[in-house]
Amino acid sequence: MYQDRVRLASLQGKVMSAAQAAEMIQDGMTVGMSGFTRAGEAKAVPQALADRAAKNPFSITLMTGASLGNDLDKQLTEAGVLARRMPFQVDTTLRKAINDGKVMFTDQHLSETVELLRNQQLKPVDVAVIEAVAITEEGGIVPTTSVGNSASFAILAKKVIVEINLSQPMTLEGLHDIYIPTYRPFREPIPVVRTDSRIGLPYIPIDPSKIEAVVISEKQDSCSTVLEPDDETRAIARHLVSFFEGEVAAGRLTERLLPLQAGIGSIANSVLHGLIDSPFKDMTMYSEVLQDSTFDLFDAGKLRYASGCSITLSERKNAEVFDHLPNYKDRIILRPQEISNHPEVIRRLGIIAINTALEFDLYGNVNSTHVCGTRMMNGIGGSGDFARNAHLAIFVTKSIAKGGDISSVVPMVSHVDHTEHDVDILVTDQGLADLRGLAPRERARKVIDHCVHPDYRPQLQDYFERACAKGGHTPHLLGEALSWHQRLEEAGSMRIEEPMLA
Amino acid sequence: MYQDRVRLASLQGKVMSAAQAAEMIQDGMTVGMSGFTRAGEAKAVPQALADRAAKNPFSITLMTGASLGNDLDKQLTEAGVLARRMPFQVDTTLRKAINDGKVMFTDQHLSETVELLRNQQLKPVDVAVIEAVAITEEGGIVPTTSVGNSASFAILAKKVIVEINLSQPMTLEGLHDIYIPTYRPFREPIPVVRTDSRIGLPYIPIDPSKIEAVVISEKQDSCSTVLEPDDETRAIARHLVSFFEGEVAAGRLTERLLPLQAGIGSIANSVLHGLIDSPFKDMTMYSEVLQDSTFDLFDAGKLRYASGCSITLSERKNAEVFDHLPNYKDRIILRPQEISNHPEVIRRLGIIAINTALEFDLYGNVNSTHVCGTRMMNGIGGSGDFARNAHLAIFVTKSIAKGGDISSVVPMVSHVDHTEHDVDILVTDQGLADLRGLAPRERARKVIDHCVHPDYRPQLQDYFERACAKGGHTPHLLGEALSWHQRLEEAGSMRIEEPMLA
Ligand SMILES: CC(C)(COP(=O)(O)OP(=O)(O)OC[C@H]1O[C@@H](n2cnc3c(N)ncnc32)[C@H](O)[C@@H]1OP(=O)(O)O)[C@@H](O)C(=O)NCCC(=O)NCCS
Ligand SMILES: CC(C)(COP(=O)(O)OP(=O)(O)OC[C@H]1O[C@@H](n2cnc3c(N)ncnc32)[C@H](O)[C@@H]1OP(=O)(O)O)[C@@H](O)C(=O)NCCC(=O)NCCS
Repeated sequence: MYQDRVRLASLQGKVMSAAQAAEMIQDGMTVGMSGFTRAGEAKAVPQALADRAAKNPFSITLMTGASLGNDLDKQLTEAGVLARRMPFQVDTTLRKAINDGKVMFTDQHLSETVELLRNQQLKPVDVAVIEAVAITEEGGIVPTTSVGNSASFAILAKKVIVEINLSQPMTLEGLHDIYIPTYRPFREPIPVVRTDSRIGLPYIPIDPSKIEAVVISEKQDSCSTVLEPDDETRAIARHLVSFFEGEVAAGRLTERLLPLQAGIGSIANSVLHGLIDSPFKDMTMYSEVLQDSTFDLFDAGKLRYASGCSITLSERKNAEVFDHLPNYKDRIILRPQEISNHPEVIRRLGIIAINTALEFDLYGNVNSTHVCGTRMMNGIGGSGDFARNAHLAIFVTKSIAKGGDISSVVPMVSHVDHTEHDVDILVTDQGLADLRGLAPRERARKVIDHCVHPDYRPQLQDYFERACAKGGHTPHLLGEALSWHQRLEEAGSMRIEEPMLA
Repeated sequence: MYQDRVRLASLQGKVMSAAQAAEMIQDGMTVGMSGFTRAGEAKAVPQALADRAAKNPFSITLMTGASLGNDLDKQLTEAGVLARRMPFQVDTTLRKAINDGKVMFTDQHLSETVELLRNQQLKPVDVAVIEAVAITEEGGIVPTTSVGNSASFAILAKKVIVEINLSQPMTLEGLHDIYIPTYRPFREPIPVVRTDSRIGLPYIPIDPSKIEAVVISEKQDSCSTVLEPDDETRAIARHLVSFFEGEVAAGRLTERLLPLQAGIGSIANSVLHGLIDSPFKDMTMYSEVLQDSTFDLFDAGKLRYASGCSITLSERKNAEVFDHLPNYKDRIILRPQEISNHPEVIRRLGIIAINTALEFDLYGNVNSTHVCGTRMMNGIGGSGDFARNAHLAIFVTKSIAKGGDISSVVPMVSHVDHTEHDVDILVTDQGLADLRGLAPRERARKVIDHCVHPDYRPQLQDYFERACAKGGHTPHLLGEALSWHQRLEEAGSMRIEEPMLA
């Protein structure tokens, strides 16, 4: 049954139960697992860890590519397995533990985790647990729906557990392109020069003797939870499409645009959807997660090629795509996140990067991670890798949240993930602010005129005018700069009037 | 007299006075001038512009590499010539005009200005004014003591004015390495793979018919104003040297370290001086400005090679180096700042980046630019280009400023230039905090234990404890987070006690 998937005969004797394999992981260890945006995570071994810890408590440092599916972060948190977690997560239970200071969370640029590992700036990985569709005749590991950090985890770990997932289609084989940068200081250029450059191997090359356990699983990936476009996200998409039209008219872009990156979440997904009815064609993507919108753009004949490091689809789209994967296979590639997000490649290709902000401020600083400056949402993810090096660094958000009690456009962001130096374009349902080449006071006027919700515009205008009267290159009133967030914490709304009773 | 420096005979007829050449520059134009860290700036034409504007007012957008010497930014500001200025400056008069909102200042990562120009995301350069030691037989421009943005300005400008500076030694010829990245989306890798990679031409290649004026000048570069090491900067250097020793002992670095970058200013310069008496040898630099310390390290036999984009020396060192330039010539190279600061190259080489912070906070966010969050000091310069992509991103600062009224370690920085994701090591005269791989609460403890001045430690500890009691991944008390800066603005000191009368 699994023999055609464990092709190196010597490894067939290593097949064991998840619980047995999980014994390799002991208290205090560092474990690197596959998984990126709830795609391709190891499923059986983490479950076995949670089960064991419920009886015999122990804890580990867990590194992944990005978020895990199948509620694994929840179960691992509840079982107390997570002492430390990096570099990204999206789970409600884990988030609470992080915000309570119970799990130490290291929020990292997604291109950097394995660079730090390779340079021994993080504790070494004791055990890697990698989901695979197959192990090749050479002992190479063929990943499933994500590559994430799996390749470097497997290569750098002392021991490797491979989870062969029988529910992941064998047609995934050949989709991956595994390339590992050479060691510094003798590193050579990373040879990606187009979105479709194939530069590595279709499997993770490791010494097969490091594979100490093979576990067979069948659990499917969790489906994506992105919401369908709504009026606000459609408005955001419209503003962006007309901005791109302007760029084409000005000769700064062609109708192919430039390789697109779109962040996680509902807003970015629906912005990409907006391109289906745009005048652009023959587009390409150089992104992280390939969401529904990528395949809808293929189906609409708009997209020529997409490079990513994972595929996460809704239930609807999942069946469509995976039942017909060969139709897409010569148009997609999955790379390690170090390569999909690499500053070198992103700067070279000239990406259009579209990421979602929690909030941004008058001067173009963006908060992607911290609610009211203190409570972690998910993490910075790849947004910094892309925004810093993009041809266009675009951040989108709805102008208000929580029924209007929150303005996502504020005097000063309560946490900075992307500085004013790294942000070109801001878009809300209200409109688009083009900040390129502007000084802070000029940016503020654009943000007030185009992005803030009308309910908050007078309040923001008033702050800005009083701050300008006080002076400075970036005018602020220190005593009031964070007062909107304080009001939200204390009175439940950022509005200056008394909040209405709920 | 200048004939041997204007070697393309057809250009000898273009020699004219600075005032005549300056007539090419008219109200509303965008002008790109040579000059980086007060080295190699065009001197005669900007002076002529200031003189003319004093009588007939007009204003322009001025782009340079970085700061200008010979008080040119001061004179241009006083004459009202500067409507807009980018990407960096260090002048007191200009700074005041920026903070008064009179000059629109665009503070940019130094690697990005010409990328934006090339992609037409900034207004095109009408006239470039480039200081040169010579024009070659082919019409190529040989820069002087800085390359900065000169090459791309000259290549992209409609018209070019060359200032042949007779006081700049002809021995500079051959030092420069001019390489321009190819256009996106068809860009190829930038072939720098070692600090000493020579990948371009020793002059700026342009169509000589664009050179519409040649001006002869003799004014010298301004000397550097860096201060000698003092007790605090020596302590910072000591902490850093012993940290490097630990990295070597742990096998993460060799005794050659990795290519060093050191930011502008007295502190960074004296930190590099600290390496003279260190156990490291055969070191290399891949930096922006080469200061006194670079040549002192050469003279001490510690440094093998230095790549930069300008040379700025004190009066003492200036004579020593330029009188014996041939002795150093095979060990130094000057590149365009786009290449010296390029994310691709910095990530590839694995730089140790040492830059100076104005202030940093409990969680490792760094402010390099804004005093009390509002008043621009100089600009971010190349610190972001380096810190983001470095092997080690180190920020140094004295623990207190202004006689102790300012703590450079605060609860929350008043402006963020480098986020917590980009900062590895913080150093003050008090000690060194190694933040690698840590969660925010862990970082805070390191900063309190090692970096803050004892006068401010109880105050910071108290803030942190009360913030933790409130909770969050990154604990803060929003109502107090910026209160230290407010107190400084209102009472003249960050101390909680009444400030003593001066
Ligand atoms: C910012 C981010 C959380 C937005 O997610 P999203 O699903 O697209 O956007 P939503 O508008 O649905 O917002 C998500 C939640 O944040 C809340 N929110 C939005 N703006 C907010 C604000 N300014 N303050 C507080 N909460 C806010 C929403 O109300 C919503 O809450 P709910 O889950 O309780 O309904 C998400 O994009 C993210 O984590 N980004 C950082 C990582 C990243 O950019 N990665 C891209 C490369 S991978
Ligand atoms: C941050 C920076 C201003 C420090 O400069 P420096 O000369 O090394 O350091 P100093 O300690 O002498 O500080 C310079 C001034 O800032 C003041 N200062 C220092 N810390 C301060 C703080 N936290 N708040 C307010 N002022 C402060 C000092 O008192 C001093 O003032 P003075 O000029 O009136 O005496 C400078 O390094 C810079 O501009 N950095 C940003 C650009 C950069 O990093 N480039 C590197 C790549 S090019």
